[in-house]
Amino acid sequence: MKILVLNGSTRRHGNTELLAEKVTEGLSCTKIFLSEKKIDPIRDMRHTAEGFPDVEDDYEEVLQALLAHDTVVFATPLYWYGMSGNMKTCIDRWSQSLRDKRFSFKEIMSQKQAYVVIVGGDQPKVEALPLVQQFSLIFKYIGMTFAGYVIGKGNKPGEVLQDEAALDQAAAINRMLKEGAKK
Amino acid sequence: MKILVLNGSTRRHGNTELLAEKVTEGLSCTKIFLSEKKIDPIRDMRHTAEGFPDVEDDYEEVLQALLAHDTVVFATPLYWYGMSGNMKTCIDRWSQSLRDKRFSFKEIMSQKQAYVVIVGGDQPKVEALPLVQQFSLIFKYIGMTFAGYVIGKGNKPGEVLQDEAALDQAAAINRMLKEGAKK
Amino acid sequence: MKILVLNGSTRRHGNTELLAEKVTEGLSCTKIFLSEKKIDPIRDMRHTAEGFPDVEDDYEEVLQALLAHDTVVFATPLYWYGMSGNMKTCIDRWSQSLRDKRFSFKEIMSQKQAYVVIVGGDQPKVEALPLVQQFSLIFKYIGMTFAGYVIGKGNKPGEVLQDEAALDQAAAINRMLKEGAKK
Amino acid sequence: MKILVLNGSTRRHGNTELLAEKVTEGLSCTKIFLSEKKIDPIRDMRHTAEGFPDVEDDYEEVLQALLAHDTVVFATPLYWYGMSGNMKTCIDRWSQSLRDKRFSFKEIMSQKQAYVVIVGGDQPKVEALPLVQQFSLIFKYIGMTFAGYVIGKGNKPGEVLQDEAALDQAAAINRMLKEGAKK
Repeated sequence: MKILVLNGSTRRHGNTELLAEKVTEGLSCTKIFLSEKKIDPIRDMRHTAEGFPDVEDDYEEVLQALLAHDTVVFATPLYWYGMSGNMKTCIDRWSQSLRDKRFSFKEIMSQKQAYVVIVGGDQPKVEALPLVQQFSLIFKYIGMTFAGYVIGKGNKPGEVLQDEAALDQAAAINRMLKEGAKK
Repeated sequence: MKILVLNGSTRRHGNTELLAEKVTEGLSCTKIFLSEKKIDPIRDMRHTAEGFPDVEDDYEEVLQALLAHDTVVFATPLYWYGMSGNMKTCIDRWSQSLRDKRFSFKEIMSQKQAYVVIVGGDQPKVEALPLVQQFSLIFKYIGMTFAGYVIGKGNKPGEVLQDEAALDQAAAINRMLKEGAKK
Repeated sequence: MKILVLNGSTRRHGNTELLAEKVTEGLSCTKIFLSEKKIDPIRDMRHTAEGFPDVEDDYEEVLQALLAHDTVVFATPLYWYGMSGNMKTCIDRWSQSLRDKRFSFKEIMSQKQAYVVIVGGDQPKVEALPLVQQFSLIFKYIGMTFAGYVIGKGNKPGEVLQDEAALDQAAAINRMLKEGAKK
Repeated sequence: MKILVLNGSTRRHGNTELLAEKVTEGLSCTKIFLSEKKIDPIRDMRHTAEGFPDVEDDYEEVLQALLAHDTVVFATPLYWYGMSGNMKTCIDRWSQSLRDKRFSFKEIMSQKQAYVVIVGGDQPKVEALPLVQQFSLIFKYIGMTFAGYVIGKGNKPGEVLQDEAALDQAAAINRMLKEGAKK
């Protein structure tokens, strides 16, 4: 089993990264930090004859990584009660990949498992629920199995490590990933 | 009353723009199309000494427009069960404006009214509800009054004009805006 | 097309009934007021050999009405951010009907259309969204088509008639029902 | 700290009770099984001169238990994507308690902590989210602190004990309750 962590944080070494590391502890995985990639907003060309144009940015690299892994951990801070703009802009581009003639994006994605890691301040365990619902709809559409999620509370640097309930959930997902890795 | 339409579509003249036009029909308003602006993702500098750096893009222009209007219509296609990456990236930057020393962003925003216009294909009247909840949390946090929303169904160009229930709701918001404009 | 209005209000002639009447105006329909029926809570017997016992209350009457109509309007006040206990207790009994050997409940229900009418005080247009999501999940499970919903605002008697946006939505549903009635 | 478990299951010794027991393991607590109480649906008398009538059922007993404990664990199976009718009917009666002249219900409740335990079959970790949101709105309205929740998966008798992630969350809540018990 190959694991990809797609991290939508806007800075490195923050609470989201810390919690994602708990989820993948002891496991080999590929990490992509979207803040280090340049991904342009999609331009909707579904209804034009020429279709989507080639875009010269880092999306192709992220896409190839998505295609090459069996399990994807979507890790994002809760920004304004949603995933980060970084991550949303990246997922929006999936509309382009759905029309990519090199492969069947939906068919390939439908064989993968998805986990979600969210960290927010204030009251994330309730305020992040619309985002969990959004991820659930996304995965259902694209066919990915929504295997689990963890919502951590953290505002100041490192604070999520004090959220014991979140650490327990991260450990539970870690066990699931390790069992999957044996197969 | 001054009205701003903040349009998160990725192309012009689509269903989202059509429905937003029904909402503002007969009213003077400023329109900003985020697809025509360059807005960089926020870099989270809340926890550094130097704070947020100046960013050379079009966010300042959008910010000034937000500050200068009493009513903001957030119009977005439903992309992957959320607002467009364009719009999310713009709203994420509000975290920077909250720390802008030139003014109290929260105090100014809290005097404004917000409307939301969403257009999606498939089953948007249910699938857009997590997004409406997200907008509701955003407005509550920033203090804006959530005055109304309309969810339209449209996939092919122009199709939203066949969604009579959505047109009725747009007309109801239009009446509210016109009554507000008299004051 | 035969229309059933299942009304979960706890008293007659309230705002929920008023808005439901707007939805069915000019149409012949059967009305059931759950406050006038005695429906016992389900006793979960799924995991026992003898199955569900016969219950001597009015559920059978409501069930027969459900089976005999093509379109069901679920009308409920927003009580504690959910449907009324009356209505929930009734829907819980569907678990018993799913095991009723006289007919295939799911197959029959899957041919019907559902509309939802909700009236709440305070901020129902946002606060009722978890309930709309719940109804959506219910209808998806049982196979009913979720054809539309309207959320009205009303606290004092008659107040919902001042909610113009809700009246417009009710009128839009009314037109849909009338078009369906012609077929 | 005095703990009340309000159990909305319709039968004893089911998955919901099992998971609630994990939450309160090693702690002294009062347990009320709503299936063993007779609680009538509320009759809405807010807008009549005489107000709410006395009702001869077991609600007063449940009410006194609520008032007498600091922490309330609301344990319910996920029936039709919501709390059981038993529990909803009970909570609906709070509207009556809000008008009870013997005490200020809201003021007393606002000093209490709430936990939620939900067990459902199929995909409860996503499908129970509208119910978690509903509980969140209920607690916000009445002023209770929403201290935590756990969603377990279980259909057949005892099955929830195989949901390791849920058991971990239950254990995390158990630790919180034990720390609270020391104070």
